[in-house]
Amino acid sequence: MALVYDNDNVFAKILRGEIPSYKVYEDDIALAFLDIMPRIDGHTLVIPKFPARTFLDADADKLGQLIKRVQKVARAVKNSLGAEGLTLLQSNESAGGQVIFHLHFHLLPRWEGVELKPAGSQMEAPEALQKIQTKIAAALK
Amino acid sequence: MALVYDNDNVFAKILRGEIPSYKVYEDDIALAFLDIMPRIDGHTLVIPKFPARTFLDADADKLGQLIKRVQKVARAVKNSLGAEGLTLLQSNESAGGQVIFHLHFHLLPRWEGVELKPAGSQMEAPEALQKIQTKIAAALK
Repeated sequence: MALVYDNDNVFAKILRGEIPSYKVYEDDIALAFLDIMPRIDGHTLVIPKFPARTFLDADADKLGQLIKRVQKVARAVKNSLGAEGLTLLQSNESAGGQVIFHLHFHLLPRWEGVELKPAGSQMEAPEALQKIQTKIAAALK
Repeated sequence: MALVYDNDNVFAKILRGEIPSYKVYEDDIALAFLDIMPRIDGHTLVIPKFPARTFLDADADKLGQLIKRVQKVARAVKNSLGAEGLTLLQSNESAGGQVIFHLHFHLLPRWEGVELKPAGSQMEAPEALQKIQTKIAAALK
Protein backbone atom coordinates (compact mmCIF):
# COMPACT_ATOMS: atom_id res chain seq x y z
CA MET A 1 0.00 0.00 0.00
CA ALA A 2 1.74 3.12 -1.22
CA LEU A 3 0.50 6.32 0.38
CA VAL A 4 0.05 9.36 -1.84
CA TYR A 5 2.65 12.14 -2.13
CA ASP A 6 1.37 15.42 -0.67
CA ASN A 7 2.47 18.46 -2.70
CA ASP A 8 1.94 20.75 0.28
CA ASN A 9 4.57 19.23 2.58
CA VAL A 10 7.20 21.64 3.92
CA PHE A 11 10.02 20.31 1.73
CA ALA A 12 7.91 20.65 -1.43
CA LYS A 13 7.41 24.28 -0.41
CA ILE A 14 11.15 24.72 0.08
CA LEU A 15 11.75 23.22 -3.38
CA ARG A 16 9.26 25.69 -4.88
CA GLY A 17 10.95 28.58 -3.06
CA GLU A 18 7.84 29.30 -0.98
CA ILE A 19 9.80 28.76 2.25
CA PRO A 20 13.46 29.82 2.64
CA SER A 21 16.20 27.38 3.65
CA TYR A 22 19.86 27.41 4.64
CA LYS A 23 20.91 25.89 1.32
CA VAL A 24 24.35 24.27 1.04
CA TYR A 25 24.01 22.44 -2.30
CA GLU A 26 21.70 22.21 -5.29
CA ASP A 27 21.74 20.53 -8.68
CA ASP A 28 19.17 19.07 -11.07
CA ILE A 29 18.53 16.04 -8.83
CA ALA A 30 18.88 17.18 -5.23
CA LEU A 31 18.74 20.03 -2.74
CA ALA A 32 20.68 20.06 0.53
CA PHE A 33 20.06 22.46 3.41
CA LEU A 34 20.53 22.71 7.16
CA ASP A 35 17.99 21.31 9.61
CA ILE A 36 16.81 24.34 11.60
CA MET A 37 16.33 22.11 14.65
CA PRO A 38 19.72 20.38 14.47
CA ARG A 39 20.39 17.24 16.49
CA ILE A 40 24.06 18.24 16.35
CA ASP A 41 26.02 21.10 14.75
CA GLY A 42 26.04 20.67 10.98
CA HIS A 43 22.88 18.51 10.80
CA THR A 44 22.09 18.61 7.08
CA LEU A 45 19.19 17.28 5.01
CA VAL A 46 19.42 16.04 1.44
CA ILE A 47 16.17 15.76 -0.50
CA PRO A 48 15.34 14.82 -4.09
CA LYS A 49 13.79 17.34 -6.45
CA PHE A 50 11.52 14.58 -7.73
CA PRO A 51 8.43 13.75 -5.66
CA ALA A 52 8.85 10.73 -3.37
CA ARG A 53 7.08 10.17 -0.09
CA THR A 54 9.62 7.74 1.35
CA PHE A 55 12.74 5.74 0.55
CA LEU A 56 10.46 2.80 -0.24
CA ASP A 57 8.35 4.37 -2.98
CA ALA A 58 11.09 6.34 -4.75
CA ASP A 59 11.92 5.38 -8.33
CA ALA A 60 14.91 3.01 -8.07
CA ASP A 61 16.97 4.62 -10.84
CA LYS A 62 16.39 8.11 -9.52
CA LEU A 63 17.33 6.88 -6.05
CA GLY A 64 20.60 5.65 -7.56
CA GLN A 65 21.31 9.19 -8.77
CA LEU A 66 20.18 10.79 -5.53
CA ILE A 67 22.46 8.71 -3.30
CA LYS A 68 25.51 10.08 -5.15
CA ARG A 69 24.43 13.56 -4.09
CA VAL A 70 23.92 12.34 -0.54
CA GLN A 71 27.48 11.01 -0.56
CA LYS A 72 28.88 14.20 -2.07
CA VAL A 73 27.20 16.36 0.57
CA ALA A 74 28.12 13.92 3.36
CA ARG A 75 31.80 14.20 2.48
CA ALA A 76 31.57 18.00 2.48
CA VAL A 77 29.72 18.10 5.81
CA LYS A 78 32.26 15.85 7.50
CA ASN A 79 35.34 17.49 6.04
CA SER A 80 34.29 21.14 6.26
CA LEU A 81 33.37 20.82 9.93
CA GLY A 82 36.30 18.59 10.88
CA ALA A 83 33.97 15.83 12.08
CA GLU A 84 35.35 12.45 13.19
CA GLY A 85 32.44 10.44 11.82
CA LEU A 86 29.03 10.75 10.26
CA THR A 87 25.69 9.08 10.94
CA LEU A 88 23.18 8.80 8.13
CA LEU A 89 19.56 8.46 9.21
CA GLN A 90 16.54 8.11 6.99
CA SER A 91 13.03 7.67 8.46
CA ASN A 92 9.96 6.24 6.76
CA GLU A 93 6.37 6.72 7.92
CA SER A 94 5.39 7.97 11.39
CA ALA A 95 6.26 4.64 13.00
CA GLY A 96 9.74 4.96 11.47
CA GLY A 97 10.25 8.50 12.78
CA GLN A 98 9.22 10.44 9.66
CA VAL A 99 7.62 13.84 10.28
CA ILE A 100 7.77 15.47 6.82
CA PHE A 101 6.52 13.27 4.01
CA HIS A 102 9.04 14.04 1.32
CA LEU A 103 11.98 11.59 1.18
CA HIS A 104 14.98 12.98 3.06
CA PHE A 105 18.34 11.83 4.35
CA HIS A 106 19.69 13.22 7.62
CA LEU A 107 23.46 13.76 7.63
CA LEU A 108 24.73 13.99 11.19
CA PRO A 109 28.41 14.86 11.60
CA ARG A 110 29.78 13.19 14.71
CA TRP A 111 32.51 13.78 17.25
CA GLU A 112 33.57 11.35 20.00
CA GLY A 113 31.68 12.03 23.21
CA VAL A 114 29.10 14.36 21.64
CA GLU A 115 25.61 12.82 21.81
CA LEU A 116 22.82 13.58 19.36
CA LYS A 117 19.99 15.72 20.76
CA PRO A 118 16.45 14.33 20.46
CA ALA A 119 14.80 15.10 17.10
CA GLY A 120 13.09 18.50 16.83
CA SER A 121 14.06 19.58 20.32
CA GLN A 122 15.28 23.16 19.77
CA MET A 123 15.38 25.81 17.06
CA GLU A 124 18.94 26.97 16.29
CA ALA A 125 19.88 30.69 16.13
CA PRO A 126 20.09 32.06 12.54
CA GLU A 127 23.66 33.32 13.10
CA ALA A 128 24.86 29.86 14.11
CA LEU A 129 23.15 28.28 11.11
CA GLN A 130 24.59 30.83 8.70
CA LYS A 131 28.10 30.22 9.98
CA ILE A 132 27.81 26.47 9.36
CA GLN A 133 26.01 26.99 6.04
CA THR A 134 28.94 29.09 4.80
CA LYS A 135 31.48 26.39 5.68
CA ILE A 136 29.61 23.49 4.10
CA ALA A 137 28.55 25.45 1.00
CA ALA A 138 32.16 26.54 0.42
CA ALA A 139 33.26 22.89 0.42
CA LEU A 140 30.65 22.13 -2.24
CA LYS A 141 31.57 24.94 -4.62
CA MET B 1 42.12 11.22 4.90
CA ALA B 2 40.70 7.88 3.78
CA LEU B 3 41.36 5.02 6.15
CA VAL B 4 42.33 1.67 4.67
CA TYR B 5 39.85 -1.17 4.13
CA ASP B 6 40.62 -4.15 6.40
CA ASN B 7 40.04 -7.49 4.64
CA ASP B 8 39.69 -9.27 7.98
CA ASN B 9 36.57 -7.46 9.20
CA VAL B 10 33.61 -9.69 10.15
CA PHE B 11 31.52 -8.80 7.08
CA ALA B 12 34.41 -9.57 4.72
CA LYS B 13 34.54 -12.99 6.40
CA ILE B 14 30.78 -13.43 5.92
CA LEU B 15 31.20 -12.50 2.24
CA ARG B 16 33.95 -15.12 1.88
CA GLY B 17 31.77 -17.71 3.61
CA GLU B 18 34.17 -18.05 6.53
CA ILE B 19 31.42 -17.04 8.99
CA PRO B 20 27.78 -18.10 8.54
CA SER B 21 24.91 -15.60 8.36
CA TYR B 22 21.12 -15.56 8.31
CA LYS B 23 21.05 -14.60 4.65
CA VAL B 24 17.87 -13.13 3.17
CA TYR B 25 19.13 -11.84 -0.20
CA GLU B 26 22.17 -12.04 -2.44
CA ASP B 27 23.09 -10.93 -5.94
CA ASP B 28 26.25 -9.78 -7.73
CA ILE B 29 26.31 -6.44 -5.91
CA ALA B 30 24.97 -7.00 -2.41
CA LEU B 31 24.37 -9.42 0.44
CA ALA B 32 21.60 -8.98 3.02
CA PHE B 33 21.37 -10.87 6.30
CA LEU B 34 19.89 -10.53 9.78
CA ASP B 35 21.71 -8.71 12.56
CA ILE B 36 22.23 -11.36 15.27
CA MET B 37 21.91 -8.66 17.93
CA PRO B 38 18.73 -7.06 16.57
CA ARG B 39 17.60 -3.67 17.81
CA ILE B 40 14.08 -4.76 16.82
CA ASP B 41 12.57 -7.89 15.23
CA GLY B 42 13.60 -8.05 11.57
CA HIS B 43 16.73 -5.88 11.91
CA THR B 44 18.50 -6.55 8.62
CA LEU B 45 21.89 -5.50 7.24
CA VAL B 46 22.66 -4.83 3.58
CA ILE B 47 26.33 -4.79 2.59
CA PRO B 48 28.13 -4.41 -0.74
CA LYS B 49 30.20 -7.24 -2.16
CA PHE B 50 32.79 -4.66 -3.21
CA PRO B 51 35.21 -3.45 -0.54
CA ALA B 52 34.26 -0.11 1.05
CA ARG B 53 35.07 0.98 4.56
CA THR B 54 32.29 3.56 4.85
CA PHE B 55 29.56 5.33 2.92
CA LEU B 56 32.02 8.16 2.34
CA ASP B 57 34.77 6.23 0.56
CA ALA B 58 32.57 3.93 -1.55
CA ASP B 59 32.77 4.31 -5.33
CA ALA B 60 29.87 6.62 -6.26
CA ASP B 61 28.61 4.56 -9.22
CA LYS B 62 28.73 1.32 -7.25
CA LEU B 63 26.91 3.06 -4.41
CA GLY B 64 24.20 3.96 -6.92
CA GLN B 65 23.77 0.27 -7.71
CA LEU B 66 23.94 -0.77 -4.06
CA ILE B 67 21.19 1.59 -2.90
CA LYS B 68 18.73 -0.12 -5.26
CA ARG B 69 19.38 -3.37 -3.42
CA VAL B 70 18.96 -1.59 -0.09
CA GLN B 71 15.57 -0.35 -1.29
CA LYS B 72 14.55 -3.78 -2.59
CA VAL B 73 15.42 -5.47 0.70
CA ALA B 74 13.82 -2.64 2.72
CA ARG B 75 10.51 -3.13 0.92
CA ALA B 76 10.65 -6.87 1.58
CA VAL B 77 11.52 -6.41 5.26
CA LYS B 78 8.66 -3.97 5.83
CA ASN B 79 6.05 -5.89 3.86
CA SER B 80 6.92 -9.44 4.92
CA LEU B 81 6.82 -8.52 8.61
CA GLY B 82 3.79 -6.23 8.37
CA ALA B 83 5.76 -3.27 9.70
CA GLU B 84 4.22 0.22 9.84
CA GLY B 85 7.42 2.04 9.02
CA LEU B 86 11.15 1.57 8.52
CA THR B 87 14.19 3.40 9.80
CA LEU B 88 17.39 3.30 7.76
CA LEU B 89 20.56 3.87 9.73
CA GLN B 90 24.10 3.95 8.38
CA SER B 91 27.07 4.68 10.65
CA ASN B 92 30.53 5.90 9.66
CA GLU B 93 33.65 5.70 11.80
CA SER B 94 33.63 5.02 15.57
CA ALA B 95 32.42 8.54 16.35
CA GLY B 96 29.48 7.90 14.00
CA GLY B 97 28.56 4.60 15.67
CA GLN B 98 30.35 2.22 13.28
CA VAL B 99 31.65 -1.01 14.82
CA ILE B 100 32.42 -3.16 11.78
CA PHE B 101 34.44 -1.41 9.11
CA HIS B 102 32.73 -2.63 5.98
CA LEU B 103 29.99 -0.31 4.65
CA HIS B 104 26.57 -1.47 5.85
CA PHE B 105 23.00 -0.19 5.98
CA HIS B 106 20.78 -1.07 8.95
CA LEU B 107 17.15 -1.69 8.01
CA LEU B 108 14.95 -1.39 11.08
CA PRO B 109 11.28 -2.26 10.61
CA ARG B 110 9.14 -0.15 12.92
CA TRP B 111 5.82 -0.39 14.69
CA GLU B 112 4.09 2.44 16.63
CA GLY B 113 5.02 2.29 20.30
CA VAL B 114 7.89 -0.20 19.87
CA GLU B 115 11.22 1.42 20.73
CA LEU B 116 14.57 0.36 19.29
CA LYS B 117 16.85 -1.48 21.72
CA PRO B 118 20.37 -0.06 22.18
CA ALA B 119 22.85 -1.33 19.56
CA GLY B 120 24.49 -4.66 20.32
CA SER B 121 22.59 -5.22 23.54
CA GLN B 122 21.50 -8.86 23.27
CA MET B 123 22.09 -11.92 21.08
CA GLU B 124 18.85 -13.26 19.55
CA ALA B 125 17.92 -16.99 19.73
CA PRO B 126 18.66 -18.90 16.48
CA GLU B 127 15.04 -20.15 16.24
CA ALA B 128 13.69 -16.59 16.33
CA LEU B 129 16.18 -15.45 13.70
CA GLN B 130 15.40 -18.41 11.41
CA LYS B 131 11.68 -17.68 11.57
CA ILE B 132 12.21 -14.07 10.48
CA GLN B 133 14.84 -15.07 7.91
CA THR B 134 12.32 -17.40 6.26
CA LYS B 135 9.69 -14.65 5.97
CA ILE B 136 11.99 -12.01 4.52
CA ALA B 137 13.82 -14.39 2.17
CA ALA B 138 10.47 -15.64 0.82
CA ALA B 139 9.48 -12.06 -0.06
CA LEU B 140 12.74 -11.67 -2.00
CA LYS B 141 12.44 -14.86 -4.07
